[in-house]
Amino acid sequence: MKGLRKITPYVPGEQPNYPAMIKLNTNENPYPPAPKVADTLKDFDVEQLKRYSSIDNLALKNALGAKHQLSPEHFLIGNGSDEVLAFCFLAFFNSSDPLLFPDITYGFYKVWADLFQVPFKELPLNDQFEIVIDDYKQLNGGIIIANPNAPTGLFKPLSEIEYLLKENPEVIVIIDEAYIDFARCSAVTLLDSYPNLIIIQTFSKSSSLAGLRVGYAIGNPDYIQIAESIKSSFNPYSVDMLAEKLAVAAVEDSAYYKEITQKICTTRDWFSKNITNFGFSTLVSKTNFVLLTHPNLNMNELYHYLETKDVFVRYFPKIERLNNYLRVSIGTQVEMEKVSQLLHDYVINDHE
Amino acid sequence: MKGLRKITPYVPGEQPNYPAMIKLNTNENPYPPAPKVADTLKDFDVEQLKRYSSIDNLALKNALGAKHQLSPEHFLIGNGSDEVLAFCFLAFFNSSDPLLFPDITYGFYKVWADLFQVPFKELPLNDQFEIVIDDYKQLNGGIIIANPNAPTGLFKPLSEIEYLLKENPEVIVIIDEAYIDFARCSAVTLLDSYPNLIIIQTFSKSSSLAGLRVGYAIGNPDYIQIAESIKSSFNPYSVDMLAEKLAVAAVEDSAYYKEITQKICTTRDWFSKNITNFGFSTLVSKTNFVLLTHPNLNMNELYHYLETKDVFVRYFPKIERLNNYLRVSIGTQVEMEKVSQLLHDYVINDHE
Repeated sequence: MKGLRKITPYVPGEQPNYPAMIKLNTNENPYPPAPKVADTLKDFDVEQLKRYSSIDNLALKNALGAKHQLSPEHFLIGNGSDEVLAFCFLAFFNSSDPLLFPDITYGFYKVWADLFQVPFKELPLNDQFEIVIDDYKQLNGGIIIANPNAPTGLFKPLSEIEYLLKENPEVIVIIDEAYIDFARCSAVTLLDSYPNLIIIQTFSKSSSLAGLRVGYAIGNPDYIQIAESIKSSFNPYSVDMLAEKLAVAAVEDSAYYKEITQKICTTRDWFSKNITNFGFSTLVSKTNFVLLTHPNLNMNELYHYLETKDVFVRYFPKIERLNNYLRVSIGTQVEMEKVSQLLHDYVINDHE
Repeated sequence: MKGLRKITPYVPGEQPNYPAMIKLNTNENPYPPAPKVADTLKDFDVEQLKRYSSIDNLALKNALGAKHQLSPEHFLIGNGSDEVLAFCFLAFFNSSDPLLFPDITYGFYKVWADLFQVPFKELPLNDQFEIVIDDYKQLNGGIIIANPNAPTGLFKPLSEIEYLLKENPEVIVIIDEAYIDFARCSAVTLLDSYPNLIIIQTFSKSSSLAGLRVGYAIGNPDYIQIAESIKSSFNPYSVDMLAEKLAVAAVEDSAYYKEITQKICTTRDWFSKNITNFGFSTLVSKTNFVLLTHPNLNMNELYHYLETKDVFVRYFPKIERLNNYLRVSIGTQVEMEKVSQLLHDYVINDHE
């Protein structure tokens, strides 16, 4: 057969889902979507679905514009931040010079670079798992960094992001802020000064809407327009009618989300501190997950042990430097107390 | 700025939407989604949206498998047939020989070929606007044909599709069956004999779910797996949780859809025949739209006249051979009687 693409199948992570489990493996939000989202869903007239969804997503762009105090032309809306990132790769990373990103970061950057045949270079995190901004001063065709980074959870202050933007005025620098609401310090304030900045945000984490698939890019309208052209040439209606309406409702119910985000951060900081009592340590997370380890325990074994207790976390067997770490999403306080107790029991029972 | 993609922005069609209008410009279904879809939406627990949607869409693959009597591995589910087609272009059309498709067909084939830099050749329809299958026996790197074709509405019998498949065993042949339920003769029966066949279907037309964005490919599991790998490397969760659940409900309410499809076909045939009384003619449509013309009238003027009467149809100014045709989606019988009356009045009043 002619013309078939030879591609190494990307194997997505498991998504187990049964009532008794504590699901802490994909950084989902443990709290339900906002009451206004629930009301909007309840009031939705199913007959509307016979019509195509919005081609320009202007309702959502206006809601986001009001939130961020930017005009609607600053936004590209897509089917989750994954689709938005894919469009941005196609729109902005067409140089023969390599795209730069950290060696330990969101695993999909490498997948898109492979898919679209973008040359790239993975720059190692330092010994403390930090991004070294000075490394990004070399010749490149673009830069993408997650801030906070995943799966480390570490946050770069805006001064360093600004330095990165200043040193790379001739390429697009994407700052992937999937977890920014848990860090509360978005690079949006830098947009006016740095036209090369593109920010990515999502409704999947802090907005409790992972199942709805809505994400967006924020940037200079001239560059957003290029990404919009790619979207229009690929799948112009990718955000369905229900998804857009519920996302608008979520933007308009910011008080609720502020409250649950605060709860998650409080639980995260409590959990991180509490498990130090039985020898665990975590990187300082500004996200809704923690990367944890223990000097005397095998984390792969712990991963399987937790699974037997219906607690599902994430282990990264393919990332050498993380082979003794687990990434644990932050659930409700009650869930994390249970997990903490399990870790405690595991340590004192027979594993040291 | 380095690395920006130079792309001619694809300008999507207008999507006006106000209560009084008769919207016949995008081949939407005039009837609401099935009662079972409405019930499923009403029963949906909004809290579920905090979790990611299904990574494998197995519920929908199983429902479609039962409908078509095929195993779930025969299906790729995507965000509308547009996304599925985009993945198929990336998966199957990587030859240096040109992809073949008709010069008058779904306008997006050319857009994807441009976006993904696939060499292509547009083969002219004959004088009756028919696809000439013998033209597709030349050297090629793949073939894509819409059956029924759009915007002509003409249907190719399966014997000709089979001949096309037989003559091109070394390339993937995509048959885009977006409108097949109005023709009632799918190429699905040819799948067993022709592994090079990929069929595309959608929930946007006959299932009244354009706003939901669900489409799918049916094909040999080995080839479907390649397209699935592209999806997994681009945006693995593109079908949101609500969309999948409502699509499953639609598949399971086939009696309702059989009924409304029949109604649309009856109205289509009545409308096509009735407007011949005032000099219009249509191509013989096996879809939910008709391509009409009139020997003594200017269709562009008629298009604008209908707009003033709140009737929105489609005119294709960029397609030379269609510059005196209008594509009119089939609405309800009541709507089409109104349109028929308008056409009648337009003809007798002062335009001949």
